[in-house]
Amino acid sequence: RSGEMAKLTQLIDNEVFRAYATYTTIVLLKMMLMSLITAYFRITRKAFVNPEDTASFGKGENAKKYLRTDPDVERVRRGHLNDLENIVPFLGIGLLYALSGPELYTALLHFRIFAGARITHTFAYLIPLPQPSRGLSWAAGYAVTISMAYRVLKTALYL
Amino acid sequence: RSGEMAKLTQLIDNEVFRAYATYTTIVLLKMMLMSLITAYFRITRKAFVNPEDTASFGKGENAKKYLRTDPDVERVRRGHLNDLENIVPFLGIGLLYALSGPELYTALLHFRIFAGARITHTFAYLIPLPQPSRGLSWAAGYAVTISMAYRVLKTALYL
Amino acid sequence: RSGEMAKLTQLIDNEVFRAYATYTTIVLLKMMLMSLITAYFRITRKAFVNPEDTASFGKGENAKKYLRTDPDVERVRRGHLNDLENIVPFLGIGLLYALSGPELYTALLHFRIFAGARITHTFAYLIPLPQPSRGLSWAAGYAVTISMAYRVLKTALYL
Repeated sequence: RSGEMAKLTQLIDNEVFRAYATYTTIVLLKMMLMSLITAYFRITRKAFVNPEDTASFGKGENAKKYLRTDPDVERVRRGHLNDLENIVPFLGIGLLYALSGPELYTALLHFRIFAGARITHTFAYLIPLPQPSRGLSWAAGYAVTISMAYRVLKTALYL
Repeated sequence: RSGEMAKLTQLIDNEVFRAYATYTTIVLLKMMLMSLITAYFRITRKAFVNPEDTASFGKGENAKKYLRTDPDVERVRRGHLNDLENIVPFLGIGLLYALSGPELYTALLHFRIFAGARITHTFAYLIPLPQPSRGLSWAAGYAVTISMAYRVLKTALYL
Repeated sequence: RSGEMAKLTQLIDNEVFRAYATYTTIVLLKMMLMSLITAYFRITRKAFVNPEDTASFGKGENAKKYLRTDPDVERVRRGHLNDLENIVPFLGIGLLYALSGPELYTALLHFRIFAGARITHTFAYLIPLPQPSRGLSWAAGYAVTISMAYRVLKTALYL
């Protein structure tokens, strides 16, 4: 069994794969942070969506008034959904790209731009910064993912 | 080619990786179940969102009245989105964690808590159970994912 | 280091894994296209959700009137979310399936039906085609994913 283990850990010893593991974990943790920010705004703005979440505020009409939407909560939720839409493709295409044997320098460049773009996107969305800040940071992450997808298809294409 | 195959299947022969494969498949199937529950409530509550989905109820005003939101449908949809937000990080971080060579016992503990937490979360959301049931089950899955992310970064960090 | 690289690229040299890489990249690119279609409809329908996105239309009431929902925008967004709900399970279960050593012919059949079903689903949603076009294409992708999950659990089950 330790022989199998050795072969498995070869994957995580490879530098490109370690870089993928690092940046993927960073962007997924960043995405998870959106849940906490949503919860923070729901509690401070007293804006909930499930009746059972407002039970601690009392019963009837008193609790019902906290079942409402709040612009700050909705903004964080849109940022969270945008993360899902963009980080899921990175998760899949980035893994296949890391396994396609790219140069370490090129791979790091792709991963760093993607992570930087998504972190910038979150700040641009939540502060919010004037456009085109959010648009450009979104486009940078998108372009990097397309570039990785191109290499995967060039290396692995089997229809 | 059978030599390559042998090497590939070594991955799926590793016990930690098999455990990851099992629990990931379980939580993804559970998430997929949310689509069926949504469809069930849309049909029994007659609450649809696309005009083409109500065509069988007749034309004009008669069909239009079924284009509406329903609290039960919306509740399932929120549970589904919460699954996406939490199972996507588990999918990525859990894979990297399984490749980082953890002890089988520790890995199983992580995977079992996560799967148990997400199944409990679904029941807490759909019944619904009074808070903090849903909050605690969400937090358990979140904490386990953070713990796996910590090990991935400690093992593989390459910035 | 080149020895490690060689072992890594064995994965991408395996025909089943190459097929997985190809079809996963295709469906993820298709999903990413939904972002561009949403942006296209937001701009042509002048229907935005963030105040900072309408700043170029002037200030005050003049810009505010473009903060509105549009049926075409909402339709694309529903298609995008449906992609997330269905392509995320394919991403995870499909990877584990590809590592479970299936026959190349069977694997290709699964991947091709899934990709075809999701592309058909997008056309059925956006045109829109009358039901049950969208329902059937959704079900085909769903059934293929269940079939792959069954093989993963049969091959790898470790609870």
